Amino acid sequence: MTNPPRTEEGWYALHDFRTVDWDAWRAAPQRERESAIEDGVAYLEEHERVVDAEEGASAVFSVLGHKADLMIVHFRPTLDALSAAERRFESTALAEFTDQATSYVSVTEVSDYVSDSYFDDDEEETDEGIRRYIEGKLKPDIPDTEYVSFYPMNRKREAEQNWYTLEYEERADLLSAHGEIGKQYAGKIKQVIASSVGFDDYEWGVTLFGGDPADIKDIVYEMRFDEASAEYGEFGPFYVGRRFPPTDLAAYLDG
Amino acid sequence: MTNPPRTEEGWYALHDFRTVDWDAWRAAPQRERESAIEDGVAYLEEHERVVDAEEGASAVFSVLGHKADLMIVHFRPTLDALSAAERRFESTALAEFTDQATSYVSVTEVSDYVSDSYFDDDEEETDEGIRRYIEGKLKPDIPDTEYVSFYPMNRKREAEQNWYTLEYEERADLLSAHGEIGKQYAGKIKQVIASSVGFDDYEWGVTLFGGDPADIKDIVYEMRFDEASAEYGEFGPFYVGRRFPPTDLAAYLDG
Amino acid sequence: MTNPPRTEEGWYALHDFRTVDWDAWRAAPQRERESAIEDGVAYLEEHERVVDAEEGASAVFSVLGHKADLMIVHFRPTLDALSAAERRFESTALAEFTDQATSYVSVTEVSDYVSDSYFDDDEEETDEGIRRYIEGKLKPDIPDTEYVSFYPMNRKREAEQNWYTLEYEERADLLSAHGEIGKQYAGKIKQVIASSVGFDDYEWGVTLFGGDPADIKDIVYEMRFDEASAEYGEFGPFYVGRRFPPTDLAAYLDG
Amino acid sequence: MTNPPRTEEGWYALHDFRTVDWDAWRAAPQRERESAIEDGVAYLEEHERVVDAEEGASAVFSVLGHKADLMIVHFRPTLDALSAAERRFESTALAEFTDQATSYVSVTEVSDYVSDSYFDDDEEETDEGIRRYIEGKLKPDIPDTEYVSFYPMNRKREAEQNWYTLEYEERADLLSAHGEIGKQYAGKIKQVIASSVGFDDYEWGVTLFGGDPADIKDIVYEMRFDEASAEYGEFGPFYVGRRFPPTDLAAYLDG
Amino acid sequence: MTNPPRTEEGWYALHDFRTVDWDAWRAAPQRERESAIEDGVAYLEEHERVVDAEEGASAVFSVLGHKADLMIVHFRPTLDALSAAERRFESTALAEFTDQATSYVSVTEVSDYVSDSYFDDDEEETDEGIRRYIEGKLKPDIPDTEYVSFYPMNRKREAEQNWYTLEYEERADLLSAHGEIGKQYAGKIKQVIASSVGFDDYEWGVTLFGGDPADIKDIVYEMRFDEASAEYGEFGPFYVGRRFPPTDLAAYLDG
Repeated sequence: MTNPPRTEEGWYALHDFRTVDWDAWRAAPQRERESAIEDGVAYLEEHERVVDAEEGASAVFSVLGHKADLMIVHFRPTLDALSAAERRFESTALAEFTDQATSYVSVTEVSDYVSDSYFDDDEEETDEGIRRYIEGKLKPDIPDTEYVSFYPMNRKREAEQNWYTLEYEERADLLSAHGEIGKQYAGKIKQVIASSVGFDDYEWGVTLFGGDPADIKDIVYEMRFDEASAEYGEFGPFYVGRRFPPTDLAAYLDG
Repeated sequence: MTNPPRTEEGWYALHDFRTVDWDAWRAAPQRERESAIEDGVAYLEEHERVVDAEEGASAVFSVLGHKADLMIVHFRPTLDALSAAERRFESTALAEFTDQATSYVSVTEVSDYVSDSYFDDDEEETDEGIRRYIEGKLKPDIPDTEYVSFYPMNRKREAEQNWYTLEYEERADLLSAHGEIGKQYAGKIKQVIASSVGFDDYEWGVTLFGGDPADIKDIVYEMRFDEASAEYGEFGPFYVGRRFPPTDLAAYLDG
Repeated sequence: MTNPPRTEEGWYALHDFRTVDWDAWRAAPQRERESAIEDGVAYLEEHERVVDAEEGASAVFSVLGHKADLMIVHFRPTLDALSAAERRFESTALAEFTDQATSYVSVTEVSDYVSDSYFDDDEEETDEGIRRYIEGKLKPDIPDTEYVSFYPMNRKREAEQNWYTLEYEERADLLSAHGEIGKQYAGKIKQVIASSVGFDDYEWGVTLFGGDPADIKDIVYEMRFDEASAEYGEFGPFYVGRRFPPTDLAAYLDG
Repeated sequence: MTNPPRTEEGWYALHDFRTVDWDAWRAAPQRERESAIEDGVAYLEEHERVVDAEEGASAVFSVLGHKADLMIVHFRPTLDALSAAERRFESTALAEFTDQATSYVSVTEVSDYVSDSYFDDDEEETDEGIRRYIEGKLKPDIPDTEYVSFYPMNRKREAEQNWYTLEYEERADLLSAHGEIGKQYAGKIKQVIASSVGFDDYEWGVTLFGGDPADIKDIVYEMRFDEASAEYGEFGPFYVGRRFPPTDLAAYLDG
Repeated sequence: MTNPPRTEEGWYALHDFRTVDWDAWRAAPQRERESAIEDGVAYLEEHERVVDAEEGASAVFSVLGHKADLMIVHFRPTLDALSAAERRFESTALAEFTDQATSYVSVTEVSDYVSDSYFDDDEEETDEGIRRYIEGKLKPDIPDTEYVSFYPMNRKREAEQNWYTLEYEERADLLSAHGEIGKQYAGKIKQVIASSVGFDDYEWGVTLFGGDPADIKDIVYEMRFDEASAEYGEFGPFYVGRRFPPTDLAAYLDG
């Protein structure tokens, strides 16, 4: 009998990947392009200001390569708010020039591997630092002008590499060692972990933010040698890009 | 020699996933949109009222992410009724604005792991509770205003993780332990299990309903640590969404 | 050194899966629809009457779900006749409203696992029943008004689950046990096995016919617990549907 | 330390698979169809006569099923000649009615498993038969009016089934036994093996020619029980078809 | 505890694969084709001259087979420059005749497996040859008129074939043996290794340049027998082509 961790959930997350229909964009009359940009900027600014919900965070990123051109990330307190944001985009004039290439649905999550006392509701023993740390994990803000890497992942359930049959203590130790690597990148890499169990095709979505893309490469590579990843990690597709302010949308689209 | 379980089948199930062609929707004249909504609402209401068959249940759900926008679920006593419902949709004006992104065909099923006496037709030993429980599994109703998660799954047949070479008793024990987790979510999560062996690409389709999406995540995650899933579960894509009444179709499409 | 079985081949088989372009169908003027149906019915009737070859069998089935709407099955003595039937369809007015979603090419096959004496050409020892049984396997007729399940499959060649390194006798025993399950469904399920080694992406194509789809589910599920499948079976996509007479094509397309 | 074999390369090979756009073909005016056929026949005849290079061989085949309608095979002394042939096709009027569904790039190859003396350049010890045999492998001609099967394949590199960690002698023995099966089909099956290591997604492309498709099935099936395939073979998609003379193109397209 | 290598990064790399829309190209008026070629040549020449950044290298290659027609490779000091180059292409008239079929994002990387002293910043012990060798790896130039092979790859993390749980010394030895094979191809094959950990779906992108495609095949094949690849290599799709000067674009497109 293995014990699952206790978990606490924060904001739901939608990673909405869009490709631009460059042929249509090139062919569109100036007036239509302006209208698309106006609509797009308004959509992005409103969602970055979170006018559609009590709290949350949104941002837009350029993405390299053929898998997508734009990634719009929304964190919101409910799935309903994400669904509304996804459909609201489709009513903008910008949507006509994009296709939804892929997406990812998840919910930010903290496990009691991190802090027993917090989950035991033992207020005296949980120091304020842990509390703020957890709050930051559950309700993340999105750093400005940073590079981003997104990827979904599983923990393996193979005969000889089975995360889910490890004892709770062993999993906690492995994740603690894993976390030590993360700490070495404090100030350089910010990590948002969200569970997609029951929601999407992998078990977690990981979003990394960093001022230098080489740091993103380094942390993922270093962690890959760590047992939690080396033996148990199973990774989906990776997306890399960079945040830009909504007002730069025209510059982005005009190359 | 391993013994397969005895099974009883109930309603056949079609999970019909549709993407909306948002470009066409945006471009359509108001009159066409109204006609599409009128047709769509009529189709959904008629099928929810099961006017096309003696019994059954139908519902429509919004779906998050790129994999689909709508999931229409039909439970009916025959495959023929499902086939008719699937084609009948294509004759609505709404169909012009949707594509069938994916689908799943299955039949609700109960195995004798659950109750020997029921399958032995031993009326005296089978209490009324079990009988009603099984009836509810075979002819499920669909809860109102609930979140939904759908995913297909297999039991593994690998050299060291082979469900199908386990003894009957071992499988029964594993599923009983698995069921214990389900019971902890009684009142929070309703589960419909349907076999797709011989019908579709995985062996079962699982549909979970719950008032809080975090409960959906929690039950799937907790079960994943249980041996039946940890060693033998093989999961396909996951879809998450929320039921809405047919009359909200216009609101849904207008973002 | 393992011995491959001796085999005898019968008719070649094409499983031709078509999706209907429902948007085009809805939009087509009545005259075009009538012409498509006329052409389609003529094509199907001619091929069911096998006017294009000396012998064979053809039938059309409705298919559930997004993978296909129609499955047209042709059995013919030569690959050339299948190629002609496939292209002949493309010259009908019906083809304009369909796309070829997928297909499967195979040849009916009997192995000497079934009857040594038959393959030894030992006429005296091979009783007439076996002879007729084999003839029925090699030149199958297609039952009327029946449900159908089609799936391709392989035998595994993994390190610890390797069908192809088993001794001949062991394979023969496993298939004999497998056949015993089939016999329990005599009169309920008719099975057509065709080899696609060298022709298509899996090693065999299996077509099951039955009056009750639950029997199809039951036989595949029961066999999955049998060693030949539990250890060595590797299954591709499954398609389920129902045969209809060509004259019902209009009714099918009109939902 | 395992020793790789020494190899000698012959002609480069392009297997160019085309689907026909039957809707466009059906709709095209007679004049356009004639022009497409004229262009297509000229392209095929010129390439079969190898007017574009000093030596080589080309042929066109009809292909069964949805994966392709036509396979055009070119063998040429350089990759550049293949690239030119591929693009030259795109400038024909026939190309407008086809899409390039898939393709395979490789180079014919002989290994010293076959003949040490040949690779040792030991002219006295290499008899003329071996020399002609190798020449025929490196510069294959394409038999007339024959059925064809094409498939790409790998040798496995799994922990317990690893071709690449076997000793040279063991690989040579396995391939020698494999070759014995091939010899039993002498006169019935002609085999062209070409390496695609570094060029395409599998390690080899295998093209089989035979007057009877059942022989193609038989040789592949029989070899599958042989250790080289049973333990180490990993097979990609299979394509089956039949060669036709360019002048039959119109007949092919008209069904 | 296994130690990850220290790494140094050089230029970021974008491999941008484009298919040509041959139907559109064939149908385009001469004037549009000329304009597309003019724009395309200008784009390629400017990027080969690296007018968009302080340093870097770019080149265009024809690609064989259906996976792509053109591969444009950009090396630049920043991800931003790659993003700009990718979008800038979309604003050319040539882009209208191409689709982005696939792509790969990576960064050139050298590990301390190669030279401890270099990474220890021990200037005295690092000889000038090593320094220049590393510089050439991090800021590669692209050879003229050469064949190219590109493929992404991983190191395996299976239970019995796990690169990431090997000791540092063992990995260094394996890569050193691997490098010995590379040295045998000195002057014939130039290799560019770039990490895509955190950026794209595999862990590395490998680009091989060589004057003879048979050398490309030979080096990849020979390395496959070497333990680093035989046990631990996991390879993605392979692309093969040839560099051409931008001024040959018209000749390329006209077949």
